[in-house]
Amino acid sequence: MVTYLKRSRCANFWQRRDEPIIQSLLDMDFYKFTMGQLIFLLHCGVQVKFAFTNRNKTVKLANVIDIGRLREELDHVRTLRFRPSEIHYLRGTNEYTERMFVEPYLQHLVHLAPPPYELAYIDGDIAFSVYGEWADVTYWETIFLSIVNQLYYEKLLADRSDFGHDRVIAEGIQRLGEKITGIKDSPIPYTFIEFGTRRRFSAGWQRYVTTRLKEEIAPERFRGTSNTLLAMDLDLLPMGTNAHEMPSVYAGLADLATGGDPAAIRESQNVFLRDWFGLYGAPLSIALPDTFGTDAFLRNVDPAFATQWKGSRQDSGEPEAYLNKMERYYRVQGIDPNERMVVYSDALMLPAIDYLAKLTEGRMQYSFGVGTYLTNDLGLKALPIVMKAVEVNGKGLVKLSDNVAKAIGTKADIERYMEIYGYNNAYNEQPVY
Amino acid sequence: MVTYLKRSRCANFWQRRDEPIIQSLLDMDFYKFTMGQLIFLLHCGVQVKFAFTNRNKTVKLANVIDIGRLREELDHVRTLRFRPSEIHYLRGTNEYTERMFVEPYLQHLVHLAPPPYELAYIDGDIAFSVYGEWADVTYWETIFLSIVNQLYYEKLLADRSDFGHDRVIAEGIQRLGEKITGIKDSPIPYTFIEFGTRRRFSAGWQRYVTTRLKEEIAPERFRGTSNTLLAMDLDLLPMGTNAHEMPSVYAGLADLATGGDPAAIRESQNVFLRDWFGLYGAPLSIALPDTFGTDAFLRNVDPAFATQWKGSRQDSGEPEAYLNKMERYYRVQGIDPNERMVVYSDALMLPAIDYLAKLTEGRMQYSFGVGTYLTNDLGLKALPIVMKAVEVNGKGLVKLSDNVAKAIGTKADIERYMEIYGYNNAYNEQPVY
Repeated sequence: MVTYLKRSRCANFWQRRDEPIIQSLLDMDFYKFTMGQLIFLLHCGVQVKFAFTNRNKTVKLANVIDIGRLREELDHVRTLRFRPSEIHYLRGTNEYTERMFVEPYLQHLVHLAPPPYELAYIDGDIAFSVYGEWADVTYWETIFLSIVNQLYYEKLLADRSDFGHDRVIAEGIQRLGEKITGIKDSPIPYTFIEFGTRRRFSAGWQRYVTTRLKEEIAPERFRGTSNTLLAMDLDLLPMGTNAHEMPSVYAGLADLATGGDPAAIRESQNVFLRDWFGLYGAPLSIALPDTFGTDAFLRNVDPAFATQWKGSRQDSGEPEAYLNKMERYYRVQGIDPNERMVVYSDALMLPAIDYLAKLTEGRMQYSFGVGTYLTNDLGLKALPIVMKAVEVNGKGLVKLSDNVAKAIGTKADIERYMEIYGYNNAYNEQPVY
Repeated sequence: MVTYLKRSRCANFWQRRDEPIIQSLLDMDFYKFTMGQLIFLLHCGVQVKFAFTNRNKTVKLANVIDIGRLREELDHVRTLRFRPSEIHYLRGTNEYTERMFVEPYLQHLVHLAPPPYELAYIDGDIAFSVYGEWADVTYWETIFLSIVNQLYYEKLLADRSDFGHDRVIAEGIQRLGEKITGIKDSPIPYTFIEFGTRRRFSAGWQRYVTTRLKEEIAPERFRGTSNTLLAMDLDLLPMGTNAHEMPSVYAGLADLATGGDPAAIRESQNVFLRDWFGLYGAPLSIALPDTFGTDAFLRNVDPAFATQWKGSRQDSGEPEAYLNKMERYYRVQGIDPNERMVVYSDALMLPAIDYLAKLTEGRMQYSFGVGTYLTNDLGLKALPIVMKAVEVNGKGLVKLSDNVAKAIGTKADIERYMEIYGYNNAYNEQPVY
């Protein structure tokens, strides 16, 4: 008779057409909050621009995604606010350091209204950017990516019959089943984290996959998710530390403040590491060293990184070379590499995971952050889309990474930063999607 | 095709027969946690017995509720644990005092396993009791009452057709609609809280009513709920302070420690008030004065009650006499009664609410705690069931209240306490259910 109003939160793979994709501001990666708190506490007034990039130049998104529909979803996000129980959840987060989010930051979230965005279709692709207080605009990142993905697949499958839809899901379930079996059967007891919010097929599918991973292989193998809403709803560990956004903006600020002093720009990475460690201490001390190349990072980094930090995340370049590099670095610093961790997170798939586990076992601690391969592997091609900080206080930002194909910035800036950091990485391969 | 596993939490009025009634340990009144923390912090090792009473001696529950079915529900509760996100919610509770639940208490809840119970059917009624650490057994109270109620109505309606069920709900909706209109139309802008977990028709019906109250008349009129799970799920304010359990056990402990010294027993109520205020301060300072009669309370209470406490709750006896008494008391203490509050919570229905609002307006601040009338008014008779602390460390406990019909304890103990407290309340009326 009367149906009761409940939180559906995309309980199905196929959301009802009239349900918005993003139904909660917690439906984003947890690292936005760990970074967000640092930004709020230490970088009040800093203006940042984020912009969207589709790395696949052959897919013209403007031909696929209707701009009106996209606007509708984005405008709905702008009406969302953090709900009281969601703030309770964040305030209650205790898994890393005791009550890690301080009250002024939580009050900032209480009052946060997703800021305006710029959207246009240029040259067949989506031009999307947000500009404003860093502490406000940072939250658009994974939300925008999730929306673009879901609209893309919605459109891609729009002409299929119900049975056609079912077959896509069936393929996804088959593949997920094979992965779970593969992981269970692996003689090496590695652990992994689901990191796929930004590349997910749909909100419902990410929820389904995460639920099944929890039921089948948690907590031994499956350790948690980067998605804060799913962590809350499914009682999983919310996981994430920091992204390129941080060293990239820190470098830009140092660049601006000193008129481009190379030493100050190089040192800015250490400033960030100190700020971060000061706020969260050991529990969240996983560094992302590749922003200006891992070699440069290891040349310049404070010894505190070796002595205090738990480890680092490998997000670009050759994982095998990375492992060798890190092992050598810790040895030189007089630290047993076996007491330090590497988190592999660059477009991982199962054979590679197995291979890396075997390779790393007994040499260093390790875990895996797995994204697209979990949340968007249903037989359809994934979209290599990203949204990055591209400007701070009007100054263009740079990210190099260990894979030149992933570099971001103007040509002049990229070359200048390569010079500053002594970057000479020849690795330039398109990642596998 | 594949249906996604979701938290249904009795989304319908009629739960699926194979779904347990209690699906979360948060599905209990919030005051169990405010009291529970004080008990945990200050009364480690105290052994308490709680027992169930059906005040309606003409309804023989053993003839209605199947003991096997009841055991099944209770045993399911024993398998429940507080989920991580539920602990997050409690840790994040900030509406009264900043992060009001301390970590040791939250860890106590994390490890809490609902303790064993004693259940038998004696003389046609249910004999249910729990005995053990006060800090563990206290949580059974509202849970047990909710289960008994729901099983009772389930059985009562078992023979009706689907349409027969629908008509009961329709009646409940009609009545709820009239209440909401009545409240909206009242010229006096009073506020109220939903307090009906223990007497609810069903978990689903309480959820429905609370959802509709929120949609229709929050936050102006409807201020929150005593049910912690509903507060979390519906973003309502969780509300509650303390119950007779506290002064009753404090008196028993003083009685035991001093071999029955009347002054110590009388003073125990002040000891409790100081402990409570020390823990929560002004925001939760609503006293429940009627445990041994409101007259005795006002004769013996520390002046701090007048100067520091926000007010009190009227839970038995004549509300009009209570208001006069409180007004006089504050005047004598040199406090403007208009700066103090009375929360009416004794079996309230709408004409009485309107009457009391009119009566109190301009004289004192006031609000209403409404239970059965909201969560169990579908044309079926409500059950006057309670579950009370009846023993501490083996010693029988006493509660008198402002209505002798609600007194609890052995005849000898009741008489002794009447003597100690100078109790001479002639009011003895069955409350209206």
